[in-house]
Amino acid sequence: MNTGIFISFEGIDGSGKSTQAKRLAATLRDLGHEVVHTREPGGSVGAEEIRSLVLEGDPDRWSPESEILLFTAARRDHLEKTITPAIEAGKIVICDRFADSTRMYQGISRGDLRAVVDQLHSLMIGREPDLTVIVDMDPAVGLSRALSRQTSEERFEGFGEDLQTKMRAGFLELAREFPERCEIINGAQDMDAVAADILTVVKARLS
Amino acid sequence: MNTGIFISFEGIDGSGKSTQAKRLAATLRDLGHEVVHTREPGGSVGAEEIRSLVLEGDPDRWSPESEILLFTAARRDHLEKTITPAIEAGKIVICDRFADSTRMYQGISRGDLRAVVDQLHSLMIGREPDLTVIVDMDPAVGLSRALSRQTSEERFEGFGEDLQTKMRAGFLELAREFPERCEIINGAQDMDAVAADILTVVKARLS
Ligand SMILES: Nc1ncnc2c1ncn2[C@@H]1O[C@H](COP(=O)(O)OP(=O)(O)OP(=O)(O)O)[C@@H](O)[C@H]1O
Ligand SMILES: Nc1ncnc2c1ncn2[C@@H]1O[C@H](COP(=O)(O)OP(=O)(O)OP(=O)(O)O)[C@@H](O)[C@H]1O
Ligand SMILES: [Mg+2]
Ligand SMILES: [Mg+2]
Repeated sequence: MNTGIFISFEGIDGSGKSTQAKRLAATLRDLGHEVVHTREPGGSVGAEEIRSLVLEGDPDRWSPESEILLFTAARRDHLEKTITPAIEAGKIVICDRFADSTRMYQGISRGDLRAVVDQLHSLMIGREPDLTVIVDMDPAVGLSRALSRQTSEERFEGFGEDLQTKMRAGFLELAREFPERCEIINGAQDMDAVAADILTVVKARLS
Repeated sequence: MNTGIFISFEGIDGSGKSTQAKRLAATLRDLGHEVVHTREPGGSVGAEEIRSLVLEGDPDRWSPESEILLFTAARRDHLEKTITPAIEAGKIVICDRFADSTRMYQGISRGDLRAVVDQLHSLMIGREPDLTVIVDMDPAVGLSRALSRQTSEERFEGFGEDLQTKMRAGFLELAREFPERCEIINGAQDMDAVAADILTVVKARLS
């Protein structure tokens, strides 16, 4: 294998992205691949600092527009420092959330800013994953799973089930918009079954 | 006076922007105006945090593109939280550097990114000052003045006289590009003479 591949995980809060990203990384390493497992916002030294700036403190201290700019700055740094070098070195990059999360959370939930997100993306990022795994599930299940965890960054989970329903529809719409890279996976199954479905679509892309 | 006015100070390092912005603020207050004296990068709580992220640490840790995004995020916050409310309240806003500095420093000195800076500006900022005072002077004089000060943020001054010569030409070109808002002031005079020239152009705009 000479060219790397870039895989992102997307989906509503608590759908199992982090769980499955970690499992996929481990499975692919066991199969002998070189894997870089990363996440957004963050994933590089500078991007993690921007992440703290956005996610800590009063959730309303940044306007949706400022937040989009900060996430785009973080993504640019993450791409330059972590993702692109790994892909060019022929590795598999697994990223827990990427630009689609900004398209959804900043583009839909905090205002009608999808067009702004897209323009900024094409101007400053200009790269999509080769494969986007959309972990799909009922928002009520996702929320109860998310709430059963302990984290210090609870802002997004605070938005409730109505928003999650809108986000779920948004992710499914995104899969229609980018059919060549998006695969919808049923996240309501047990973890092993979800992992097996994901491995099937990943293997199809690797060969 | 019911509508505010937005005045920016631009020019090469050490040309006297900060000195003159402060003097103008004091003079206008003495004349009975309500003045908000601010600066970039920074000028609001969030923007000052972004300023620290960009200006502290290794100057090469951000690419020019990431730096433009961070400065644009800071500017958006500064505009929303400080500048726009003051103008809408009928105040005079005096800003030590604004978007023109990004057009010059990130757009010209760190790469050929002027078009990117302009596209980001029109997408996310979309506001120019009513008056831009360009303090013009010989780069050698500006550098020697700047070096005679003590500050912890010396990165831009480190770029040397060649760059300052390029920047000076850039600011003069900017004045041709935006003739309606730009006024070139001879900064090589003594401080009182510079202040008097600036007050003349400001009074013309206020009446
Ligand atoms: N298939 C599954 N069945 C039952 N529980 C699961 C399943 N997948 C994940 N979980 C549990 O649900 C919770 C949320 O999972 P995870 O953190 O992976 O979701 P996420 O999509 O990354 O959430 P977030 O969007 O908040 O980052 C965790 O406690 C996890 O152990
Ligand atoms: N007209 C002047 N004649 C002599 N010295 C001056 C004059 N104006 C300013 N100075 C001095 O030159 C130095 C630089 O001035 P100032 O800090 O105002 O420049 P600046 O344009 O804000 O610089 P920077 O771009 O680095 O922020 C200061 O020490 C200041 O006291
Ligand atoms: Mg997660
Ligand atoms: Mg200054």
